[in-house]
Amino acid sequence: MARKSGGGHPRAGTLAKSPLAPARFPNVPEIAGVKLSAVAAGVRFRGRKDVMLAELAPGTTVGGVFTRSRTAAAPVEWCREKLKSGRARAVLVNAGNANAFTGLAGVSAVETVAGAVAAELGCHPSDVFLASTGVIGEPLPHDRITRALARLRRGLSAGAWRSAAEAIRTTDTFPKAAAATAEIDGKPYGIAGIAKGSGMIAPDMATMLAFVFTDARLPADVLQRLTATANRASFNAISVDGDTSTSDTVLTFATARGPRHRRVSSAADPRLADFKTKLRTVMTNLARQIVRDGEGASKFVTVTVSGAESSRAARRIGLSIANSPLVKTAVAGSDPNWGRIVMAVGKAGEKADRDRLAIRIGDWPVTEGGMVRADYDESPVARYMKGGEIDIRVDVGVGRGRFTVWTCDLTQAYVAINADYRS
Amino acid sequence: MARKSGGGHPRAGTLAKSPLAPARFPNVPEIAGVKLSAVAAGVRFRGRKDVMLAELAPGTTVGGVFTRSRTAAAPVEWCREKLKSGRARAVLVNAGNANAFTGLAGVSAVETVAGAVAAELGCHPSDVFLASTGVIGEPLPHDRITRALARLRRGLSAGAWRSAAEAIRTTDTFPKAAAATAEIDGKPYGIAGIAKGSGMIAPDMATMLAFVFTDARLPADVLQRLTATANRASFNAISVDGDTSTSDTVLTFATARGPRHRRVSSAADPRLADFKTKLRTVMTNLARQIVRDGEGASKFVTVTVSGAESSRAARRIGLSIANSPLVKTAVAGSDPNWGRIVMAVGKAGEKADRDRLAIRIGDWPVTEGGMVRADYDESPVARYMKGGEIDIRVDVGVGRGRFTVWTCDLTQAYVAINADYRS
Repeated sequence: MARKSGGGHPRAGTLAKSPLAPARFPNVPEIAGVKLSAVAAGVRFRGRKDVMLAELAPGTTVGGVFTRSRTAAAPVEWCREKLKSGRARAVLVNAGNANAFTGLAGVSAVETVAGAVAAELGCHPSDVFLASTGVIGEPLPHDRITRALARLRRGLSAGAWRSAAEAIRTTDTFPKAAAATAEIDGKPYGIAGIAKGSGMIAPDMATMLAFVFTDARLPADVLQRLTATANRASFNAISVDGDTSTSDTVLTFATARGPRHRRVSSAADPRLADFKTKLRTVMTNLARQIVRDGEGASKFVTVTVSGAESSRAARRIGLSIANSPLVKTAVAGSDPNWGRIVMAVGKAGEKADRDRLAIRIGDWPVTEGGMVRADYDESPVARYMKGGEIDIRVDVGVGRGRFTVWTCDLTQAYVAINADYRS
Repeated sequence: MARKSGGGHPRAGTLAKSPLAPARFPNVPEIAGVKLSAVAAGVRFRGRKDVMLAELAPGTTVGGVFTRSRTAAAPVEWCREKLKSGRARAVLVNAGNANAFTGLAGVSAVETVAGAVAAELGCHPSDVFLASTGVIGEPLPHDRITRALARLRRGLSAGAWRSAAEAIRTTDTFPKAAAATAEIDGKPYGIAGIAKGSGMIAPDMATMLAFVFTDARLPADVLQRLTATANRASFNAISVDGDTSTSDTVLTFATARGPRHRRVSSAADPRLADFKTKLRTVMTNLARQIVRDGEGASKFVTVTVSGAESSRAARRIGLSIANSPLVKTAVAGSDPNWGRIVMAVGKAGEKADRDRLAIRIGDWPVTEGGMVRADYDESPVARYMKGGEIDIRVDVGVGRGRFTVWTCDLTQAYVAINADYRS
């Protein structure tokens, strides 16, 4: 069910942490108004935590962005509907079963679980948000989740970030969290988030699960705006394999339990400047961790496109490079194969001036004037490509649009994992 | 530089023919007005034929479709320009060097080669069509080609199909040709084509090189229309890895040297019905051979989408399935993982009714009513998936649009080949 250190049958193997994983789990502060809990409910996995519950203080607002898949999972449709009220009291997430493509039984399972969480916590079912990740097309064994609710409630505590991050994993090889402190009106507010994802990651919205919490006091429409904006430069800027899940969900919650600040009524309020930056930092950090856990990944790749007609065009070109199997396999092979980068720029369908295209790999300029530089020496670039962090910069020479995307390489291990794991 | 039988370093290995290759090279008839020749010119490869020349009788018309890449190679730009006249007297193709992203030197190389071919054959340079395939970004050693022209001319013969098909290969593990006989006005005309391609194959136009010849008498505008139409259902319906080359070229030539038929002045002429069918048959046959030579391919996959809003929508959904790394690795692993098919339908962005989505794998219906069928038994489907020819049929339940695409699986061998081969 996850990366193996050697070859052979991944499902039978032991988990090997991604070589690109951060050295340790970060320090994540408590967020006033947020309590977390996680238990082993046996949804699919045995002997590991697989359900997480966050209880949110009354008055918490919620924002969210979801997969654009036309075959979205039942919990996604539930959240999209409940988001309209802007209120949240809880979020419950299970791993092991996506409750996707499960027909009316899936809808019914969502209602059952939301009702049971609401009963356990004494809130309205509409204020309970849900996410499920794992196998598609198998009925959700919702009774295993509802039976675990009392245990989940008893375990609620403000500091259980690591436990929560671990419970939402599927093929992830390490738990993912990030935190920052932002100022509004000179007062400090916490922002903390957890995320999961390693395969089926593509940037057509969120492409994985992420839950971000703050104790600032933000009206739901403002929070929604901030979330959508931060999402564009973070979760929408990563790609592991170009595939988009049926369950991608990013939810943000603002509990209003931090220090009192003057009322904010617009996302354009200049007092939110620092908060916006820090929210983006947390979400970008989580997004990059997802790439670092890309299935089979051995290299972390940053693709920066500049000189495009617009940032939207730059993003499309960046993703064309990041999603190209030929570029990704060249990176896996430590091959500074800039011809494939040219190919990927060309196929993106966005305006690019072939004869002004400037490609840099690491610190080395490679092309200019529609051809390789006369003084280009491949040897140091090939040595650079053997490293674990690869920067590719492309200027397409037609405008000022700019965008950065993050991806990983495509290795034989990716194929081994996915030729076998039933996701 | 091509598939290896075992693991390890592909470049150092011996060529192993794709397990999906046809049993033998087909019988290809002579086409009146077409003479072929191929030689080893040492463009890049040693000890193998790498340049092919076809001489075409005076009066030959030409049609063509090309890559949509914004970084198209110099020969593509040359052909696109020369196609306007509708006339052709020769086509010269080299393997080993794509003359792509070679700046002004590339443009100059094209003019030099076309001029030399014209001088050798006694025609106008504008009537010489060119294609190059191979490494991107290295100057074309055009003198090696021009030095070989006299040898090429001396070797011209009507039956040299196999030799020509072999000379245009790069990572191809077998030469590709197809032929048919079509009737116009009750008289027989030959159609014969050769093609190359195995990696960097995606369907945004031609996605490889193909050259098709007939002795029918077709005005250039009619030939162009027939070519574009046949292309949509053939070369535009295949995908190996979703990548698009800078050099994709399909050229068709009509020599008018077959039996005399009454003048055709419109592609809509009903007398062309059989010719259209046979042209499509030849081009589809070549396209499918390219998939059968997909880098690392171990299975040939036919994806048929029906019930879409339009054939265009059906094609997008089909390609979303065919290009999904998760679907392709599942096929490689003989895993009937229909959940990934649901995912790929969802991410295509086209209208689909999740609750009417019907998926069949081989002869087995898998889903109905938004979930897996109650009587679905995976065992026989898993056995079927172990075969070399996999049929996936998906009805998305919203309209009458239909399209079939062909692809192959994504194997560890694909990664091994592309992490190493400098294309």
